[in-house]
Amino acid sequence: MFRTNTCGELRIEHISNQVTLAGWVQRVRKLGALTFVDLRDRFGITQLAFNTESNPELTERANKLSREFVIQAKGNVAERSSKNTNIPTGEIEILVDEFSILNEAELPPFMIENDTDGSEELRLKYRYLDIRRPKLKDILLTRARIVKSVRAYLDAKDFCEIETPTFIKSTPEGARDFLVPSRLVQGSFYALPQSPQILKQLLMVAGMDKYYQVVKCFRDEDFRGDRQPEFTQIDCEMSFVHQEDILNNFEGMIQHVFKQNLNYELGEIPRLTYHTAMKLYGSDKPDLRFDCKIVELNDLLPASEFGVFNNTISSGGLVAGINAKGCAAFSRKQLDELTEFVKVAHRGLGGLVNIRFNEDGSVKSSIDKFFTEAQLREFGNAFGAEKGDLILIAADKISKVRKSLGDLRLHLAKQNNWIDESKWSVLWIVDFPLFELDEETGETIFVHHPFCSPNPEDMQYFDSEPLKVRAQQYDMVMNGNEICSGSIRITNRDLQKRVFQKLGMSEAEQQSRFGFMLDAYKYGAPPHGGCAFGLDRMVMLMTGGETIRDVIAFPKTSGGRDLMMDAPTTVDEKQLKELGISTISK
Amino acid sequence: MFRTNTCGELRIEHISNQVTLAGWVQRVRKLGALTFVDLRDRFGITQLAFNTESNPELTERANKLSREFVIQAKGNVAERSSKNTNIPTGEIEILVDEFSILNEAELPPFMIENDTDGSEELRLKYRYLDIRRPKLKDILLTRARIVKSVRAYLDAKDFCEIETPTFIKSTPEGARDFLVPSRLVQGSFYALPQSPQILKQLLMVAGMDKYYQVVKCFRDEDFRGDRQPEFTQIDCEMSFVHQEDILNNFEGMIQHVFKQNLNYELGEIPRLTYHTAMKLYGSDKPDLRFDCKIVELNDLLPASEFGVFNNTISSGGLVAGINAKGCAAFSRKQLDELTEFVKVAHRGLGGLVNIRFNEDGSVKSSIDKFFTEAQLREFGNAFGAEKGDLILIAADKISKVRKSLGDLRLHLAKQNNWIDESKWSVLWIVDFPLFELDEETGETIFVHHPFCSPNPEDMQYFDSEPLKVRAQQYDMVMNGNEICSGSIRITNRDLQKRVFQKLGMSEAEQQSRFGFMLDAYKYGAPPHGGCAFGLDRMVMLMTGGETIRDVIAFPKTSGGRDLMMDAPTTVDEKQLKELGISTISK
Repeated sequence: MFRTNTCGELRIEHISNQVTLAGWVQRVRKLGALTFVDLRDRFGITQLAFNTESNPELTERANKLSREFVIQAKGNVAERSSKNTNIPTGEIEILVDEFSILNEAELPPFMIENDTDGSEELRLKYRYLDIRRPKLKDILLTRARIVKSVRAYLDAKDFCEIETPTFIKSTPEGARDFLVPSRLVQGSFYALPQSPQILKQLLMVAGMDKYYQVVKCFRDEDFRGDRQPEFTQIDCEMSFVHQEDILNNFEGMIQHVFKQNLNYELGEIPRLTYHTAMKLYGSDKPDLRFDCKIVELNDLLPASEFGVFNNTISSGGLVAGINAKGCAAFSRKQLDELTEFVKVAHRGLGGLVNIRFNEDGSVKSSIDKFFTEAQLREFGNAFGAEKGDLILIAADKISKVRKSLGDLRLHLAKQNNWIDESKWSVLWIVDFPLFELDEETGETIFVHHPFCSPNPEDMQYFDSEPLKVRAQQYDMVMNGNEICSGSIRITNRDLQKRVFQKLGMSEAEQQSRFGFMLDAYKYGAPPHGGCAFGLDRMVMLMTGGETIRDVIAFPKTSGGRDLMMDAPTTVDEKQLKELGISTISK
Repeated sequence: MFRTNTCGELRIEHISNQVTLAGWVQRVRKLGALTFVDLRDRFGITQLAFNTESNPELTERANKLSREFVIQAKGNVAERSSKNTNIPTGEIEILVDEFSILNEAELPPFMIENDTDGSEELRLKYRYLDIRRPKLKDILLTRARIVKSVRAYLDAKDFCEIETPTFIKSTPEGARDFLVPSRLVQGSFYALPQSPQILKQLLMVAGMDKYYQVVKCFRDEDFRGDRQPEFTQIDCEMSFVHQEDILNNFEGMIQHVFKQNLNYELGEIPRLTYHTAMKLYGSDKPDLRFDCKIVELNDLLPASEFGVFNNTISSGGLVAGINAKGCAAFSRKQLDELTEFVKVAHRGLGGLVNIRFNEDGSVKSSIDKFFTEAQLREFGNAFGAEKGDLILIAADKISKVRKSLGDLRLHLAKQNNWIDESKWSVLWIVDFPLFELDEETGETIFVHHPFCSPNPEDMQYFDSEPLKVRAQQYDMVMNGNEICSGSIRITNRDLQKRVFQKLGMSEAEQQSRFGFMLDAYKYGAPPHGGCAFGLDRMVMLMTGGETIRDVIAFPKTSGGRDLMMDAPTTVDEKQLKELGISTISK
């Protein structure tokens, strides 16, 4: 070894020990006759001390060290005269007898400090330098610890890790598959798994009850927002279970992971039905770190001349609102901004009605003309409005109002710092619908994937009113983000075929895409179900990262590029020819 | 849950417990008024008992159960009258009160027993049934336990698991890359990693000392023999270490894994230099479960008229042989078969000289004409030959003789059961050469990969006699199979460039392929090294499997096909068009 100790382990009890350390020069400080070098490695930082009076030649050499030089230093552990209580090694320093330079370093293109001056693009290009920053390093270490605690929990519950293949058959699950041309079977392609869904179900048919895998998955999506072409899933499946068993098992897992890694007691994970979540929060992944529920007004509205409300209700729509606590004093401009927010694409509301409950006790509203003050105060009561509150009301189709108010709720919370960042909101959403209508095509499509089991209680509606059928599907939501999704699976071949059929899949298509799975279900499929956690997002939330790029060692940009390696790249024609493919020029 | 207990956990102390089990019907046996059903799940087999006299209707239904039906059964645990000592649950049975069929099963296409009647092709097509066989199931469970013990060891030593990307840049490392066409950057391709070699080295540059990863790797090779397009590696790297530190660390790991999983004390792992291994065993992965060393005769040979020996020696070749213990009585046909063995491709020897030390004390040789009996006995002494032994001698170029005798040694060992299967031969091979000559092209090529550090002691030969330079490279060999390979890496940018140059890489090629890595080495690369274990092969050896297909849940055939899913397949023209590629018709 080039060292006797790491840069993170020496303490006051090691005083007088002769040690050798190795690491990177974090900084060099000259204070009169003294020179101090902060030496850094994965484990911490230790101060090296040099004294011109006792060793002028060595100190002279130390003064010439630059940032990021890799050095090895030998010396004695001594108590510091001026202690640094911010770091665990802050009580000691090494009185260096000799050192050698193991490797020199050019000036890095950005500061290797938590507050760096490098742009994200520059830092991605030099990712190996970016990871030297304690912030990124600590996230990667925490990620490893989180995965370790997941494994420990599942191992203790007799789960067995099984690797499923990366080269599978293309059976698109909603997103586009990445393809890999086969050289040996020219003209043919493997697909990379969007998830090991079918394979884990076949493992249950194979009897390998209690499977898990921490596994890379691949989706060829347009990289809007915070997506990566490859991501990591904690993938699980159990046999002979009901939904309740799975919820309990993974409630236990997330509690364990929080306790182990954040020393935080999550407590019982509350459950909301999909319907309630949509009704109260306008979202199937509500953030419950703040309250602000949606209040529906249809049944409360008195007769009025206000056409918007009247038309909405008569056409089966919804009038509902939220209470923006303490926002009564919002300016005209602020209110306009909120109206603009609910008007933009995907939301498309016509506008927002507002009622201000002013601090002076007065009530002002954009619909003063149509309602008496008493009526407005009545509305206020439905929201629990107090002096200083602002009520915002929307009227339109049910789904549009819910989604818009759900978004508005989040927007206001961020804008006004309603969120207590020290709190955690972890909950289950249950009773998702099995099917939904594709708004563009009007076709019946699946909500999750075509293997989710319908709730047996709802099978009476399967043919007549399929949209009414609930699935045995559940999501875990953390601080307003879906971090886990799962379901009880269909294990009856005929029912599976009925679902495929309902999704518009012909017999021939069923056979060519899922024939092997339908075959498997002839030979004794056990009841089973499972779920998958999105590891990247879970780690991002648990480490306070802002994007999942922060929790991945070597991420791609939103355009799918690796700026460090410069991938993807063109390849030799010879390579393509061997694979039996060619590129099409546009 | 569909069960209160698994089929593997009930014992004599559970007698009188009311339990519910669920699983697959292994078999149904009728013995007069009694019917026994063996119920199987991942955890074991439990006997269900039915009695016509006490419950005729239930027993009648049980008699109609077929193999592989999935059932749930409720009843009381009772002591068996006739115990089965072969299984842990063999002392009890369940007196069933009621049962229900959870799923029916058609007759499986082959017997779901360890000794099955299914061909490998059939079993791969119905892999989900093949895995129900205890043999395969146990291998998968053992594989998971082996990985768990590896992680436990590395975690305890402060190693940190970090995921490296699956989509990287194509930088071929000897084998062909699999490519993934990029839709967003049309005409460009990601490569799948043959190993995370460069990325783990960049993690060391990034300061993430003590990395590991259990990771899928991909090589597009012609699938001769026992290869898979995707395979799993235990990939490790450490900073501030010398070769000795790495050998010690992973010696500890393999000892731990053997102790934990096989309860076997491996003891100290012996080390052989590459040169000694080649000289004594004709292989850089010798199987030391049996002795049979190669003995070199050049210095022992008396003057004779035997042209083959004389010419070999005068042209710088090697005369050497092995002692086939106890094989003196081999027939003409057996000897011919051995001669044939060393003549075939890759070996290409002209023939074998034999000397038989017969049980009656006589000596017979194919070179009786050229040597006296005393001389033949002298040869025998060099081999420690005793009555009953057969000496086989070859003469040709050094490398050809060593390789052929190495192969012959193994061939004889298998043929004559010299190998004690209860023994383990685990050793390190060290001091590999850095370069070798490509026999076809005559070019200097690397032995392992271009990042292996030369042994500093040999740098004097780097330019003058590069083939003499040893690398700081080491392999771990288990029962004659390489299961791990690693090295100390080059961390000096100039030296790395000299090696690239020696391998015939132009400056431009160095930049386009490895520019990002050469750049990284400007910013303070620490001394580092590591290794990678081939998990599939290691598990295969440790579980007594015959091919790595046995230790992979869903393997490909030797032609790279998944017979179960039927992959690879053709895909829609539309999909290809989106990717900007087309297939070339032959």
